Amino acid sequence: MDKDVTSCFSQRARWAAGQPISELMAQALANPELISLAAGFVDSSTLPCDEVRRAVEKLMADPHQARAALQYGTTHGDRKLRELILAQWQAADGNLARTDLDLEQVILTAGSNQLLHLLADTLLDPGDIVLTARPTYLVFLGIVRNVGARAIGVPTDEDGPIPEGVEQTLKELEQSGWLPRVKALYLVPYFNNPCGATVPQQRRVALLDVLARWSRHHLIYLIADNAYRELRYEGPDIASMSCFDQEGDRVIETGTFSKSFSPGVRVGWGILPSALVRPVLDQKGNVDFGSPHFAQKLMAQVLQDGGYQRHVKMLQATYQEKLHAMLQAAEQHLGKLPNIKWRHPRGGLYLWVELPEQVDTGPGGRLLQEALLEGVLYVPGQYCFPADQRPEGTNTMRLSFGVQSIDGIQSGMAKLARAISRTLAACSTPSRGQEPSRLASARLAPQ
Amino acid sequence: MDKDVTSCFSQRARWAAGQPISELMAQALANPELISLAAGFVDSSTLPCDEVRRAVEKLMADPHQARAALQYGTTHGDRKLRELILAQWQAADGNLARTDLDLEQVILTAGSNQLLHLLADTLLDPGDIVLTARPTYLVFLGIVRNVGARAIGVPTDEDGPIPEGVEQTLKELEQSGWLPRVKALYLVPYFNNPCGATVPQQRRVALLDVLARWSRHHLIYLIADNAYRELRYEGPDIASMSCFDQEGDRVIETGTFSKSFSPGVRVGWGILPSALVRPVLDQKGNVDFGSPHFAQKLMAQVLQDGGYQRHVKMLQATYQEKLHAMLQAAEQHLGKLPNIKWRHPRGGLYLWVELPEQVDTGPGGRLLQEALLEGVLYVPGQYCFPADQRPEGTNTMRLSFGVQSIDGIQSGMAKLARAISRTLAACSTPSRGQEPSRLASARLAPQ
Repeated sequence: MDKDVTSCFSQRARWAAGQPISELMAQALANPELISLAAGFVDSSTLPCDEVRRAVEKLMADPHQARAALQYGTTHGDRKLRELILAQWQAADGNLARTDLDLEQVILTAGSNQLLHLLADTLLDPGDIVLTARPTYLVFLGIVRNVGARAIGVPTDEDGPIPEGVEQTLKELEQSGWLPRVKALYLVPYFNNPCGATVPQQRRVALLDVLARWSRHHLIYLIADNAYRELRYEGPDIASMSCFDQEGDRVIETGTFSKSFSPGVRVGWGILPSALVRPVLDQKGNVDFGSPHFAQKLMAQVLQDGGYQRHVKMLQATYQEKLHAMLQAAEQHLGKLPNIKWRHPRGGLYLWVELPEQVDTGPGGRLLQEALLEGVLYVPGQYCFPADQRPEGTNTMRLSFGVQSIDGIQSGMAKLARAISRTLAACSTPSRGQEPSRLASARLAPQ
Repeated sequence: MDKDVTSCFSQRARWAAGQPISELMAQALANPELISLAAGFVDSSTLPCDEVRRAVEKLMADPHQARAALQYGTTHGDRKLRELILAQWQAADGNLARTDLDLEQVILTAGSNQLLHLLADTLLDPGDIVLTARPTYLVFLGIVRNVGARAIGVPTDEDGPIPEGVEQTLKELEQSGWLPRVKALYLVPYFNNPCGATVPQQRRVALLDVLARWSRHHLIYLIADNAYRELRYEGPDIASMSCFDQEGDRVIETGTFSKSFSPGVRVGWGILPSALVRPVLDQKGNVDFGSPHFAQKLMAQVLQDGGYQRHVKMLQATYQEKLHAMLQAAEQHLGKLPNIKWRHPRGGLYLWVELPEQVDTGPGGRLLQEALLEGVLYVPGQYCFPADQRPEGTNTMRLSFGVQSIDGIQSGMAKLARAISRTLAACSTPSRGQEPSRLASARLAPQ
């Protein structure tokens, strides 16, 4: 017998191996003193303990409701919660809202992450293509890789993917014979992960127009991941992508209560074009037979009681302060270093930072080592670029102001600035090589 | 553009289409008056409302615990719950328990169903083979189909798969060149779905011995689905498959709290050979980034407080009565009909019934129509046989005593007997053809 046990693993298992996010999490776990500006988690102190306690009390006080919550639900998801989600989505879209959406188009999943994977399984064969911004949500890149498909980055500016750039990419793919394999454009329209940018209304229309014109072989879907829509701290809301979907058959909206309420309850949702509902539910039926009914009933209760809306308001105020603290700390600590750029997001959880080109922010570079020595962690920006274009973004990083307190943000940014400063100094002197023993001891006994 | 929207769906989406269980559920939903002896659900009146209410109260009373429960967990799953599961599993196995199991080998999933799918994705490429009993758990057959693999049924008797039959099947697969594609044997060792049989200890050893001898190209795993272990109403427990796994690298144990506590909370678990932990977690990381932490913390609380153990005792007493009610009703109503056989299970939720060979219990047969006219639903037995061997079991059915009250069981069995009786009468007279209009109206206005 072949003693290499991996010889019986599937191709998919090989595609899944070695996720960068696991490495980062392992680093954070191995060193609890570390100030993580990496994790895209929400602030634990904002978690809705009272709202959840009250909602469960209410739910369990009604024996009929209580039993229903503890029984299997449907693969589609709890009807009441789907109604509430649809109504809320339409209300947020105001007078541009699609009124032709049917409740059957709304489905519930275990976070929106699960829905993204179900969509990948439903749409993508190995070798198929999804277009993404450059940079984009790194976990989505893992999902695409997991099913053996390819993410191809399109030209992107501060407002997201550039419509003319998408068009140019599609033209090139047509010339090389790959156009029939393009199944979707993946987009985070609101306060995207990792840059914090929101796609303006006019560009939403233009992107859909490009996809419609290039859907020559079949529909090219637009997957709109709205994880951060509720986390807006400045300016007015913008209507969702589906409002601009002429035929109503192209835009897939995904959302989640993980960022705006609680990741531990873990309820996500989608509003799908009708043709996609059955195949996505067929996948879901095989994958887990429906998401936890109890969590769905709990979220329905929280939405009905207005506890959700109150919580989002509180979150907006809290995160606005934290965003400003991070921007201020960036000004104070990074502003004095040469050639460091960052953007001012109006919502979300992230700050995207560009360093001088000679600085390698990646896992093999000096900066990450210096940062770990200081006791601060960031996400190397290169993880957020599709593999086809790597190495790209090797001088960038994603910072999050989600988890840390304001003190933690300030102290983390000061540590980061010191690490950058030392790295810049080393870049301008001859290489001295790495110092693994110093790094190893630093991880065990951080400063 | 091709107007057939399915042209852009994946091969996997095509594999997933048309699940028999969705058809059955649609039939049940369309007719709420129907007495369903089909669904493998638990009895709603037994659901642990008080236990859950108390556990959530306790959990939320401690702010530190409460916040942890509402935050992201790890992909691995809550450590405390994994400890409790491992301790309980080892306690159940008594002096045969494996003491060399490591906590890292225990992982948490959204029901054990999700774990079965993760295992399929980790082990099976399209065209790969899993051996199963004949009949076996129909949802597992859907999972295998979903990843494009093949389930091949092995000779099976009242004690489960016959070791010599497994050996013979492997020999034939070797002769036809397919042996390298055999990745696992799937087994429900306790009170299996759909027959209710438990694999005796000696056969457990023999099955593992066969797999060890035929693992020539690579390890052939044994997936032991223990969904019903706790639902024992008679006789002493038997040690789990892993106790007889000589090298400790072959047996994958899966379990769930869906049958023994609450499907709505939806927490399942696995104890995996060490080599499988990383690849399965890599899949899970991509698929959903970890199961709901809140549900895991809740289950840990319930287990710690002894509420789980009390609940299982209550369930055992309740289901024992229901099993006896079904056996009595079978005796009373089916016993007077010719050539109908059923087995006496000592646990689980199911009764497997064999009718005379000329009776077609399938979706196109007369009996299902007659049963719907009477207002009773069963699972056609043929759904529980691997597709390669179909049509097989066309004269069998799976009944469940899980959902219905004792009255419901009695009345359902009487209805079923009338439907069988009419079908038998029709079998012995010349065919009169089907009566679709009568069926259609019956579905809308059941008796």
